[in-house]
Amino acid sequence: MLEKTTRMNYLFDFYQALLTPKQRNYMEMYYLEDYSLGEISEVFDVSRQAVYDNIKRTEQMLESYEQKLHLYEKFQQRFELLKRLGEIISDDNDAQQLVNKIKELD
Amino acid sequence: MLEKTTRMNYLFDFYQALLTPKQRNYMEMYYLEDYSLGEISEVFDVSRQAVYDNIKRTEQMLESYEQKLHLYEKFQQRFELLKRLGEIISDDNDAQQLVNKIKELD
Repeated sequence: MLEKTTRMNYLFDFYQALLTPKQRNYMEMYYLEDYSLGEISEVFDVSRQAVYDNIKRTEQMLESYEQKLHLYEKFQQRFELLKRLGEIISDDNDAQQLVNKIKELD
Repeated sequence: MLEKTTRMNYLFDFYQALLTPKQRNYMEMYYLEDYSLGEISEVFDVSRQAVYDNIKRTEQMLESYEQKLHLYEKFQQRFELLKRLGEIISDDNDAQQLVNKIKELD
């Protein structure tokens, strides 16, 4: 479950701009702020089932975007390469600064 | 016009996975293979106006994805940073290889 939560947090991070405001709200509360389905349903005055269905559908959308665009996968690969690069050039301040700027783009 | 073509080629590259097969076909023929609207309409046996409308709508979709995800913008920024980094570490083969691998991810 922790693994899924971590993955969903990343996918949400990469693709949230493609979601509707309602989808964003539910996902933020459920995954980032750790609200329960019941609590979210009370806040929005809808059924627990409606919240559950919306979140499941949003999770599928995020996975579908990832299958198509691979942003999370590429981020992980780039992260590893930049880490190794940072170790190799650790004595070069100018290069290190550029590596950090590249990291900040993700 | 050349500038627009270049931009559309890049946006198409980044977001084509989010388009329908028909949208992809029209865009490929128009922007990559330089078919005219009339030629595309003959190949698919539809009106020139239908092809035009579809391509205009697809262009708007690509711009809308870019506004939300900024993949092309980030690619350009990363490209510049990696170029400067490559110049700084040009005497270090291991670092150079890692820089090239990072470039290949885009």
